Amino acid sequence: MTHPAEIKALVFDVFGTIVDWRSGVARGAAAFLDRYAPALDPYAFADAWRAEYSPSMEEIRSGRRRYVRLDVLHRENLVRTLDRYGIVDVPDADIDALNLAWHRLDPWPDAVAALHRLKRRFIIAPLSNGNIRLMVDVAKRAGLPWDAILGAEVVRAYKPSPQVYSDTVEILSVAPAELCLVAAHNGDLAAARRLGLSTAFVLRPTEHGPGQTTDLQADDAWDFDVKDLNELADRLGCPD
Amino acid sequence: MTHPAEIKALVFDVFGTIVDWRSGVARGAAAFLDRYAPALDPYAFADAWRAEYSPSMEEIRSGRRRYVRLDVLHRENLVRTLDRYGIVDVPDADIDALNLAWHRLDPWPDAVAALHRLKRRFIIAPLSNGNIRLMVDVAKRAGLPWDAILGAEVVRAYKPSPQVYSDTVEILSVAPAELCLVAAHNGDLAAARRLGLSTAFVLRPTEHGPGQTTDLQADDAWDFDVKDLNELADRLGCPD
Repeated sequence: MTHPAEIKALVFDVFGTIVDWRSGVARGAAAFLDRYAPALDPYAFADAWRAEYSPSMEEIRSGRRRYVRLDVLHRENLVRTLDRYGIVDVPDADIDALNLAWHRLDPWPDAVAALHRLKRRFIIAPLSNGNIRLMVDVAKRAGLPWDAILGAEVVRAYKPSPQVYSDTVEILSVAPAELCLVAAHNGDLAAARRLGLSTAFVLRPTEHGPGQTTDLQADDAWDFDVKDLNELADRLGCPD
Repeated sequence: MTHPAEIKALVFDVFGTIVDWRSGVARGAAAFLDRYAPALDPYAFADAWRAEYSPSMEEIRSGRRRYVRLDVLHRENLVRTLDRYGIVDVPDADIDALNLAWHRLDPWPDAVAALHRLKRRFIIAPLSNGNIRLMVDVAKRAGLPWDAILGAEVVRAYKPSPQVYSDTVEILSVAPAELCLVAAHNGDLAAARRLGLSTAFVLRPTEHGPGQTTDLQADDAWDFDVKDLNELADRLGCPD
């Protein structure tokens, strides 16, 4: 197990771990759907759009496609989702506007205060598949006090490709165990651990809504296993 | 001329524009020189070390060498500077420690308050040749409230290579004129303008010490020409 004193920097998954993407995307989609598909539930629409997320990145992770940033994938996935629902003749400007729903996601209630606590003692940065501008827009709106924006666009690869974790260790000039990934997703933590990073699981039991069936507990003996980010700050000895 | 209302993001040169590298490096070198070369003036040593800066990046700008981050160049340049002064038999750990002087530079007196003003209205980020960890260490120590760390390491190229400015425009998803480079160096601004960026010259008349002969005035009609960053915040309509 990693001793808290060893850690120098914390990097965070963002979608699901720091912000509630499902509610935010559903909120962003509601006015759009009122106009184009009033019978559709915005949460079902958010889930359908999100279902395209991992397959679209897999094209790049597998090497079949060169890196493009997540804003581009989100828009392609949105067009595919609209097609599937038979929502047609939508002006490009309305598609572009809806795509920005991902730039306006709310943080979980503990996130802002806990990140301020952690920032006093550690370097803190997102390690998200979201691109830099998306991360900046979310952070400015929500008040997330990041020290830097790291992640997919900086290394031009998508998690859980090993390069994302190893290049981030290199960028931060730390030993792998001195960098802790904080995530609500066991798969992300498993990939980080394979590169020697420290790991912290934070429980987000409603990321996928009230019927969530995945990531309801730590699947492995991660270095930290906490119910929210304030508990992580406590465990790492950060004052209130 | 760019109208202030058009600008969405500001990126900043850092060494010389935001922080006083010469005093900081001299301060960092003083204890080292006391031990290894007590006759040497720390400011002369800082100037000699800095004289290697641009030539070392030119190897990469020209394509003769692949990108390595500035911490690596600084250390090579330090070893070269020590050799030139005949300072020998220095343990690696002492060289590593001195190299970190660049991570502990003080901001000019106006910088922190003005950046807080500008951050309320604009995305603000460094666009420095310094690497990400160096920028993070300087920012955390000085309290620089960046929204992101952009610059050489993100695009893997050194200013004034055109790619640094054009890739940053792309990353921020803005039109070139919506991005303003703020710098104390006419050459940096000229390179940015060639890519269509907006430009702001800030006067830093003692960056190179009391006898400074360069960059004492705007050499071209930049979009803004200010005596410090608070004047820029005023010109851009940012409240105190």
